[in-house]
Amino acid sequence: MLRTHTCGELRINDVNKTVTLTGWVQRLRDKGSLLWIDLRDRYGITQLFLEEGKSDQKLLVAARELGREFVIKVTGTVAERHSKNDKIPTGAIEIKVESIEVLNQSKVPPFTIEDATDGGDDLRMKYRYLDLRRNIVRECLLLRHKMAQQTRLYLDGLNFIEVETPVLIKSTPEGARDFVVPSRIHHGEFYALPQSPQTFKQLLMVSGFDRYYQIVKCFRDEDLRADRQPEFTQIDCEMAFITQEDILSTFEGLVRHLFKNVKGIDMPSVPHMTYADAMRFYGSDKPDTRFEMRFSELTSVAKGKGFQLFEQSELIVAICAKGCAGYTRKQLDELTEFVKRPQIGAKGLIWVRYEEAGTLKSSVDKFYPEEELKKWAAACSAQPGDLMLVLAGESEKTMKALGELRLHVAGQLGLRDKNKFAALWVIDFPLFEWSDDTKRYHAMHHPFTSPKREDIPLLDIDPGKVRANAYDLVINGSEMGGGSIRIHDRATQQLMFSKLGFTEEEAKKQFGFLMEAFEYGAPPHGGIAFGFDRLCSLFGGADSIRDFIAFPKNNAGRDTMIDTPSTISEEQLDELGLTIKSENSNR
Amino acid sequence: MLRTHTCGELRINDVNKTVTLTGWVQRLRDKGSLLWIDLRDRYGITQLFLEEGKSDQKLLVAARELGREFVIKVTGTVAERHSKNDKIPTGAIEIKVESIEVLNQSKVPPFTIEDATDGGDDLRMKYRYLDLRRNIVRECLLLRHKMAQQTRLYLDGLNFIEVETPVLIKSTPEGARDFVVPSRIHHGEFYALPQSPQTFKQLLMVSGFDRYYQIVKCFRDEDLRADRQPEFTQIDCEMAFITQEDILSTFEGLVRHLFKNVKGIDMPSVPHMTYADAMRFYGSDKPDTRFEMRFSELTSVAKGKGFQLFEQSELIVAICAKGCAGYTRKQLDELTEFVKRPQIGAKGLIWVRYEEAGTLKSSVDKFYPEEELKKWAAACSAQPGDLMLVLAGESEKTMKALGELRLHVAGQLGLRDKNKFAALWVIDFPLFEWSDDTKRYHAMHHPFTSPKREDIPLLDIDPGKVRANAYDLVINGSEMGGGSIRIHDRATQQLMFSKLGFTEEEAKKQFGFLMEAFEYGAPPHGGIAFGFDRLCSLFGGADSIRDFIAFPKNNAGRDTMIDTPSTISEEQLDELGLTIKSENSNR
Repeated sequence: MLRTHTCGELRINDVNKTVTLTGWVQRLRDKGSLLWIDLRDRYGITQLFLEEGKSDQKLLVAARELGREFVIKVTGTVAERHSKNDKIPTGAIEIKVESIEVLNQSKVPPFTIEDATDGGDDLRMKYRYLDLRRNIVRECLLLRHKMAQQTRLYLDGLNFIEVETPVLIKSTPEGARDFVVPSRIHHGEFYALPQSPQTFKQLLMVSGFDRYYQIVKCFRDEDLRADRQPEFTQIDCEMAFITQEDILSTFEGLVRHLFKNVKGIDMPSVPHMTYADAMRFYGSDKPDTRFEMRFSELTSVAKGKGFQLFEQSELIVAICAKGCAGYTRKQLDELTEFVKRPQIGAKGLIWVRYEEAGTLKSSVDKFYPEEELKKWAAACSAQPGDLMLVLAGESEKTMKALGELRLHVAGQLGLRDKNKFAALWVIDFPLFEWSDDTKRYHAMHHPFTSPKREDIPLLDIDPGKVRANAYDLVINGSEMGGGSIRIHDRATQQLMFSKLGFTEEEAKKQFGFLMEAFEYGAPPHGGIAFGFDRLCSLFGGADSIRDFIAFPKNNAGRDTMIDTPSTISEEQLDELGLTIKSENSNR
Repeated sequence: MLRTHTCGELRINDVNKTVTLTGWVQRLRDKGSLLWIDLRDRYGITQLFLEEGKSDQKLLVAARELGREFVIKVTGTVAERHSKNDKIPTGAIEIKVESIEVLNQSKVPPFTIEDATDGGDDLRMKYRYLDLRRNIVRECLLLRHKMAQQTRLYLDGLNFIEVETPVLIKSTPEGARDFVVPSRIHHGEFYALPQSPQTFKQLLMVSGFDRYYQIVKCFRDEDLRADRQPEFTQIDCEMAFITQEDILSTFEGLVRHLFKNVKGIDMPSVPHMTYADAMRFYGSDKPDTRFEMRFSELTSVAKGKGFQLFEQSELIVAICAKGCAGYTRKQLDELTEFVKRPQIGAKGLIWVRYEEAGTLKSSVDKFYPEEELKKWAAACSAQPGDLMLVLAGESEKTMKALGELRLHVAGQLGLRDKNKFAALWVIDFPLFEWSDDTKRYHAMHHPFTSPKREDIPLLDIDPGKVRANAYDLVINGSEMGGGSIRIHDRATQQLMFSKLGFTEEEAKKQFGFLMEAFEYGAPPHGGIAFGFDRLCSLFGGADSIRDFIAFPKNNAGRDTMIDTPSTISEEQLDELGLTIKSENSNR
């Protein structure tokens, strides 16, 4: 090694040692007779020290020529500092410099290499290698490293085998859009990049691997939204000879292991809630349960009093914001504006203040005298000092809107603390969801999810009512993982494909190998996949996944640092037997 | 869990326990009054037992209906076996069956699920999920799992950070052919799949990550040969602030750790040999050093005696096969045939028997009397009982041919034992190799490899003579890994690109980001990558990597199980803005 120690290593008991350090010049403070340099590497910062009159004159000249981010190698003696810095682990010592070698110079970086940088997003992406020098960003990737190691440690301990599944696989029409890879050898044919290793992990169960896992890259060619990446990473797992309860307890175990070993948090056991209840109480299949504020239905209590809006509504539903009776008119107007935004889509907001004095005041006093509002308060378990917020309209839309309002109000009340974590298993998801676009049912999870046995008779009568053996792990209102008990027999799988509108031929072409595999002794099995990028960002207390990915793409799917995607040569296109359509012939 | 125990778990001290097992019916032995079933899962085999008269009659009927590979769930009582089987860990017990539930039936598998299967390669690939049920194949993947875990354990212990680098990157012309991925959003543009994360790991060093590793999928669209896969896995590593010696000792440590912890073998420290010596002594840059049999040059000793073949030869070189003086004429003819094969390309073979009696007999007695042959023997350090094998001709070709002969003879002599391991660092590789095809120098390693400082003056005068700071780890004659100390300044990198025939513009377009990064304080750095598939197969004592990959492609790059590559829909092509050239317009 070019160094004897790292920049995070030296302590007071190293005083008088001769050491060699390497690293980057973080800053230089020149007080005329005294000169300090902060030397930085991945492991920390160590203060270097030179003194006019005592240090060699040439050395002083050389030191003064150093610029920010120069890479240097320094030899010197460890000395105790006069004024110690207890904010950094090396703060008790400094190095009296005896020699400096410049290993590489640096141009002035386009933004400051500090936690609070002056660089904007675009600049940071273009110079990602400099952005990654910032402690705050490197910490995110160190956290990710730790998460991966702890995940493997936990799963290894439970006899899971890590198996790499192929990246060059086959394009299938179900699900999101595939990235495809033209084959040069097989002209006109394509591989596809996996959206998940789903069928392969199921085949591994058919193979008797019993317990599989992989931390694996997956790919989706979707129209990008903020915080969605074309390539992302999953913790992908599957188990055989299990019930749903086994999966839930095994992977609740994983999450608790991670909280314990990465964040030092003892997480309580994770409650279960049906999808139906989650929708009913929170208007969401991924409720944030760091706080309660459950929905209370007022439809039967509030209807029939001549208030036109309510009379026309399928559902009247409220949340109770504890201690918010003092909200000003301005605050209430802001909430009304919030729900009326097109993304939320409510027509208006009804509020009821349950004042400390015990009186009730509302925005619908004309229609509802206090004794009626008392009934509302009872339905909402509201107490004096609370504020009820009521939405009405078409059931599904209203639930969703109130769910958004609930999060908004909770945010205002500081109930969504990033350092607090609440996990929830949402279970019994519907098997299908109806698409108005395609006028057919789609698999809510994927076509390999098994229906609940007792709901199978509904498959023909009322497919929308069939519940699946499917589950999501939700933490702080975000879906962290999801999975299901799979179909493991050919007949059910074939029935499922037919319900999804596959012809027998299509099903066979796309998934024939899986259905055939099911005929050779497929065991009962199920699994789960966690969004690893998101899990890391949750643990890191961040909103965005981007800083937990070393080299992310921007919102247009582009890596601006290496400048990709980019054109390829005519020769490459020729070899692949492809031509690019001219712009105007393209739709 | 559907089971209380696995099929590999029960022992004599479990007798009388009521247990539930799940697994596959391996075989059924029906002796009329007694019925045995071998139940198999990943963990082992447990014998089930039913007895006419004692077991329930319905149960006996059900048991007799079981077929091979049926998946069953069995409850029963653990009993001591009358005749124990000490070949399996559960051989002391059997289960007296009380109930059987068929979890899934199985058609008769297309080949037997046994270590010695009757299935051919093609069938096994098509039904890979059944092939993976065979112990012998599963063991390969369990070994791989263990190798991966131990690799991470070692590198984690040395402060390496695991970082995931992107899969959707940029196509570059240097090196092998890229797989490309058309972008739907950016019409006419493409991503490329990485042949290695080379530039990204170097950028991580520029970022100060100091020590990086990743077990990572890489991709090469090469014409496939046996045992080459379009996607393969690397252990990819990089370190900053190091010398070449640091890299060699760190990764020698990794390999020794793996041998110790995966195979229980204490490996001695790994010798270093220059590329020049490897070529001189073994005619190969990846010599098998499980045995010596080094080359001895006879050019000066043997020339000038009127033997036409030798007089016309640039090089005369021999190996000495210890104790082989007794080789029959037939054996020697076979060796002569071997070297004359077109793949080897020698014109003929000269042999000299140093007989036990001390006399020397050769195929060139006419030209070389015994006293001349004695000089050969001295040059070869041959002893009575040994056989010398001599090739002559153009230097490079002759060395290569003798290298092949050396391996062939060693194979015959049983010197290439799969359970013996000999590792070697080959260092000081040439920086460039000349290509007769393109009439220019190519980077022997890659364009980021640094030249030896003392050879830099040769860059302009004699590029072929410039040595690189590049090294390979060779085990048993196979390259297991290779790497280099990298260039870390813009000027040298630019010079390197120009020597490789890049115009300044091309270099900038392809690698501008890297050269720019070198201007912002790039530290000295270097690294290595190991072929993980090959390393696993070496550890597994296999010749082929295929059984160490869960779902390999065949030699035509095809996965016959899922049937890919395959056609995609017109709609997909449209969205990508691509058309497939008709066969006749394609070159």
